[in-house]
Amino acid sequence: MPTYKAPLRDIRFLMNEVLDYTTHYQTLSNGDLADADTIDMILEGAADFCENVIAPLNQSGDAEGCHWQDNNVTTPKGFKEAYDIFVQSGWQGLSYPVEFGGQGLPMSLNLIKSEMMGTANWSFTMYPGLSMGCMNTILQFGTDEQKQTYMPKLVEGSWSGTMCLTEPQCGTDLGQVKSKAEPQADGTYKISGTKIFISAGEHDLTENIIHIVLARLPDAPAGTRGISLFIVPKFIAHEDGTIGDRNPVFCGSIEHKMGIRASATAVLNFEEATGYLIGEPNKGLHAMFTFMNTARIGTAVQGIAHAELSFQGALPYAKERMSMRALSGKKDPDKVADAIIHHADVRRLLLTQKAVAEGGRAMIYHAAQLADKMTDALLNGDNAAFEAYDDKLGFYTPILKGFLTELGLESANNGMQVFGGHGYIKEWGMEQIARDARIATLYEGTTGVQALDLLGRKVLLSSKGKVVREYTAEILKFCGRHARNKYMRRFVWDLTKICAQWNTLTLRIMLTARKDRDIVSSASVDYLMFSGYAMMAYFWAQQAAVASEKLEKGDGKEEVDFYKAKIKVADFYFERLLPRTQGHAEAMVNPSRGITSLKAEHFSFDY
Amino acid sequence: MPTYKAPLRDIRFLMNEVLDYTTHYQTLSNGDLADADTIDMILEGAADFCENVIAPLNQSGDAEGCHWQDNNVTTPKGFKEAYDIFVQSGWQGLSYPVEFGGQGLPMSLNLIKSEMMGTANWSFTMYPGLSMGCMNTILQFGTDEQKQTYMPKLVEGSWSGTMCLTEPQCGTDLGQVKSKAEPQADGTYKISGTKIFISAGEHDLTENIIHIVLARLPDAPAGTRGISLFIVPKFIAHEDGTIGDRNPVFCGSIEHKMGIRASATAVLNFEEATGYLIGEPNKGLHAMFTFMNTARIGTAVQGIAHAELSFQGALPYAKERMSMRALSGKKDPDKVADAIIHHADVRRLLLTQKAVAEGGRAMIYHAAQLADKMTDALLNGDNAAFEAYDDKLGFYTPILKGFLTELGLESANNGMQVFGGHGYIKEWGMEQIARDARIATLYEGTTGVQALDLLGRKVLLSSKGKVVREYTAEILKFCGRHARNKYMRRFVWDLTKICAQWNTLTLRIMLTARKDRDIVSSASVDYLMFSGYAMMAYFWAQQAAVASEKLEKGDGKEEVDFYKAKIKVADFYFERLLPRTQGHAEAMVNPSRGITSLKAEHFSFDY
Repeated sequence: MPTYKAPLRDIRFLMNEVLDYTTHYQTLSNGDLADADTIDMILEGAADFCENVIAPLNQSGDAEGCHWQDNNVTTPKGFKEAYDIFVQSGWQGLSYPVEFGGQGLPMSLNLIKSEMMGTANWSFTMYPGLSMGCMNTILQFGTDEQKQTYMPKLVEGSWSGTMCLTEPQCGTDLGQVKSKAEPQADGTYKISGTKIFISAGEHDLTENIIHIVLARLPDAPAGTRGISLFIVPKFIAHEDGTIGDRNPVFCGSIEHKMGIRASATAVLNFEEATGYLIGEPNKGLHAMFTFMNTARIGTAVQGIAHAELSFQGALPYAKERMSMRALSGKKDPDKVADAIIHHADVRRLLLTQKAVAEGGRAMIYHAAQLADKMTDALLNGDNAAFEAYDDKLGFYTPILKGFLTELGLESANNGMQVFGGHGYIKEWGMEQIARDARIATLYEGTTGVQALDLLGRKVLLSSKGKVVREYTAEILKFCGRHARNKYMRRFVWDLTKICAQWNTLTLRIMLTARKDRDIVSSASVDYLMFSGYAMMAYFWAQQAAVASEKLEKGDGKEEVDFYKAKIKVADFYFERLLPRTQGHAEAMVNPSRGITSLKAEHFSFDY
Repeated sequence: MPTYKAPLRDIRFLMNEVLDYTTHYQTLSNGDLADADTIDMILEGAADFCENVIAPLNQSGDAEGCHWQDNNVTTPKGFKEAYDIFVQSGWQGLSYPVEFGGQGLPMSLNLIKSEMMGTANWSFTMYPGLSMGCMNTILQFGTDEQKQTYMPKLVEGSWSGTMCLTEPQCGTDLGQVKSKAEPQADGTYKISGTKIFISAGEHDLTENIIHIVLARLPDAPAGTRGISLFIVPKFIAHEDGTIGDRNPVFCGSIEHKMGIRASATAVLNFEEATGYLIGEPNKGLHAMFTFMNTARIGTAVQGIAHAELSFQGALPYAKERMSMRALSGKKDPDKVADAIIHHADVRRLLLTQKAVAEGGRAMIYHAAQLADKMTDALLNGDNAAFEAYDDKLGFYTPILKGFLTELGLESANNGMQVFGGHGYIKEWGMEQIARDARIATLYEGTTGVQALDLLGRKVLLSSKGKVVREYTAEILKFCGRHARNKYMRRFVWDLTKICAQWNTLTLRIMLTARKDRDIVSSASVDYLMFSGYAMMAYFWAQQAAVASEKLEKGDGKEEVDFYKAKIKVADFYFERLLPRTQGHAEAMVNPSRGITSLKAEHFSFDY
C-alpha cells in the first residue's frame, strides 16, 4: 500500500542547488517574505500535513467515493476534518495577498505545496485547487467590491470556488456555450443553463461555493466572442462576509468516474440564479484564458504526482518480493529467490518512474519561477512584463501539461506492472493511482488539444518557430558551458543533436503546412512528445551538471551517493527514454493524407 | 456506450482471402469437418450469441461484480442464463473430440469464437475459457478413466475447470510452490495449501468445478523439479457423470479488482481435499508448460478484443460529437462545428485502434493455424511434428501475448481519449474497456516475463538467433514476390530495412550478452516491442498485398472501398506505428549497467 513521504531532499535539490530559488526570490517584490526559514517551515509543515492528514484518506476516499442526495454532496469520511485543518493552518492563503488575509508568498511555493498535496491525495487537493482559478479571476477582473466580498473567505478557505465552463454539448469548443444571462433591473443577472464536469461544484467542506460561470448575454454575438463571465455564489454573499439566501444553482447529480472518486464532479443546474458580471461583457473567454497557463501547469503537476506516488508504492515492493534469479547471478543467495529489484527489467520500470517524477518536477519548478515573475508583474501593474512572461510560459504549458500527464500515466502503470498480478488488486493501492492518473490527459484540454496549442499556436502561428530557436539556443549555451566536463560529455552531445533535430523538424513541418494544413494536427502529438522528451533531457542534464559539480568540488562528501544517483538517473533518461524521440520524429513528418484520406464512412464496413 | 457487432467482413477477409483457411483446413485430419457451410454457421451463430446474449451483460456485469458469501460466489445478474444458452448451443465443445461429445472442429475455430466472445464480454468469456486449460491437460496427460470421468461434462460445459498455479508468495516463480499432496492408501492424495488469483475458481454457473492443481509430493525435490499436477474436483466425480461429496476446497474470498469485475478471481483453500495425480510425479510444471503457448495466445486475444471494442465505441462518437473546425477547412459547414472525426489527431487515435485490432487479428489467426497443426499432430500421436509446431508457435507466443496486450491497452485508452472527459465517466462504457484491458499485460506472464522468454529463451538460448533469421527470410521472400507491385513498394522497402535491423540487433545483443548477461533482461522489453512492430508490419503488408491484388484484378468491384481502406490502414501503420521501432532499437543496445549500477538502497534518499 503506497504511503506518501514528501521527497524533501529532492525538492531542496531543485530549489537550492539546481534552480537557485534564493536568487530567484530576490528578484520578486514579495521575495523577501520567502526567506530560508519560511521556506523550510512551509516545506516541513506541508510534508507533515500531507503525510499525516491527507495521505491516509487517499485509499479510503477512493473506496467510499462521494455521496449525492437531494442536491447535496457528502465527501468521504475524514475529508471535512482534514479540510478544517487545512483552513486552520492557513494553507489556502499561502500565495494570496496579505490584504485579503493571505501570506503573500510567491506563487511557486503554492505550487510546490500543491504538488505535495496532490501526490498525497489528488482528489482532496482538487477542492482547494479549484478555488485558485476562482480567486485568480476575481483578483484580476473583479471590482474592488467583488474582491472585498469574496476574497477574504476564499483566501481563508472557508469558502471555495469553481470554474463552470463545460456544458453537455461542448468542452474544448466553448464557442458552443448556451448558458444564458438575463440582465435585471438591479444590475445583476439571472443565469440559466446546465454545466457539467464541475470539479468541487458541490460538497460539504465549506459554507459557501463561489462559481465563476461562462454564459451569454441576450445580445451577445455567436461563438467565442459572445461569452461573458459571471460570479454565481451558492449562497448570496454580503460584503461583511455573512451569507444570505440560497441561490438557485443546484447539483443535479455527480459523475461516476474511473478514478479521483473522492473528488465530486458535479452537474450544476442554474435555474435563474443570481449572477454578477465580472470583467467586460463578451470578453469572458479571453479572461478565462488569462489563467489557462497556470491552471494547466497545476494539472501538469498531476503527471509527476502520480509518477512519484506510484514509485513510492513500487520501490519497497520491488525490494521485498522474491522471484527468480537475476541473469548475472544470485543477488540474495540466502533467500529462496532474488528480490525483483535485481531484475533489470523491473529496474527499467522503476527508473522510468523516477526519471519522470524528478525530471518533470524540475520542469515544473522552473515554470513556477516564470509564474512567480508573471504574478509579480501583475501585482506591480506591469502589463508588458506580464505579457512577456505569460508568452514564455505559454510555450512550456502545453508541453508540461500534455507530455508530463502522458508520462505520469505510463509511470503509474509501471507501478502496477512491478506488482505483477497484485497490481490489479484494489487493496494494494497501485491500480487506484493508475485510475486517478488517467484523468490528467483528458481534462484541462486533452493531450491532442495541448499538442495543437503547442504546434499550431505557440510554435507556428505566434512565432514561426522562433520560440523553438530561442529555447534550443538556451540549451546549446548550456552545452557550451559544460562541454569539457567528463560527466557531461554524453549529455552535451545528445542535447546538441536533439536541438538540431527539433529545429529541423519545426522548419520542415512549417514548410509542409503551407500546402498541407492538416499536418499541423496530424503531426501535433508526435511533435508535443518529441518536445517534451527534448525538454526533459535538458532538465536532467541540468541536474547532472549540478551533481557532477558537487562531486568534483567535493562539496557533497556526505552525500556522494545522492549526487551519483542523480547522474545515473540522468544517464538512464538519455539511454532509455530520450531515444523515443526518434519514433516521433519519423512519424510526424509524414504528410497528413495518410491520416485524412480515409473517408469517415470507410472506417468500418461491419458497423 | 459501446455495443458489440462482430466484424465478420474483417474476419472473413483474413480467413478466406489473406490466410487461406480453406487450404489450411484441408491439411488437417479433422479439416473436412470445417467446410464452408459449417464455418459460416459458426461465425454467424457466434456473432449472434455474442451480440445479443453476452454483450448486453458487459457493462452491467462490471457495475455489479461478483458476490462472495460463505465460500460461495454468485455471478452478476444474467450470467447464469447466458451460460446456460452457451452450454445448450454446444459452444464449449466446438473443438473438442467427438468421442467426448464435442464437435471435433479445428482449434482455430474455437479461438475465433473466443475472440468474438472476449470482445463482447471478456469477463464472461473467462469462465468457459479456463475450462480449456483443464480439458487440454486431462486430454493429454489424463488416464482413460480420468478422461471418461471428466471430459464429457467439461466438453458439454455443465462442469467447468480451472488452473491453480499461483500462491501468495509466488506467481511467475512457480518453483516456490508450497501446496502439499499427501499420498493416501487408496491411491488418492490429500491436497493442502492456498492458491490465489484463480480465475473461475468459484461461481454458480456449473454444477461442478474441476481444479488442476500444482502441489508437492512429500519426497519431492526442491524447486521446479518437485512439482506435480493433481485433479481436485469441487464435488467428487463418479465415472457415470454424477457427483458425490463436497471436496474440502473452499473459496475464502474473491479479489476486488480494477477491472474484469464480473470474472470471479478466487482465493482457494485446499483443506486436505481429495486429489488425483495426473501425469508423472514431479513433472507437473513441464506438463503445465505444454499448453503455455495456447494459453498465452488466448490471452493475446485480449489485446485485439479491447482494441476492437474500444474502436467500436469511439467510432460512432467521433462521427457524432461536434467540436471546432478541421484545420483544412469546414467539413460540416451546416453544423455548429465539425464532427471530431475530421480532426487529424482524432483520426490518429482511431486508426491506431483499427491498425492494432486488424493487424493483431491477422497475427493471431496465423498463429491459430499453427495451433491447429500442433493439435492435429497431438491427436495423431506424431510427437515430432507436435514439437516442431510447438517450437514455431513458441516464437510467436511471447510476441503476440506481450506486444498485443500492450497495444491493446494503448488502444483502449485511445478510445477514452476520443471521448475527452466523457471517456472518464462510467456510463459511457469506455473506461471499463481500459480497466478490463489492464490485466492483460499482467497475467499469464507479465510483459517483462514474455520479453525474457522471447529474447532469453526463444531467440538466444534455443536458437542463437536462428529463429529470427528464418522468420525474416520468410518476410524477405514475401518482399521479393511483391517488389514490382506499385501499391506494395513502400511496404517492401520498409520491411526489408526492418528485417535487416532485426537481425543486426539480435546479433549485437547476442555478442554483448557474452560479457553482459543482464543485457538480456535490460534489452528484453524493447526487443519484444521491436519484434512486435516488425511482425505486425509483415501482417499489414500481407493484407495490403491481397487488397491490392483484388483491386488490380478487378475482383472486388463492389468492395473497392473495403480493399482501399485496408491499404490505407496499412499505410497508416507503416507511417505512424512502425517508426516506434527506432526508439526501441536505440534504447535496447545500451549496456545493462545504465540500469543495473544504481544500488537498490540509492533509489531513494527520502524513503
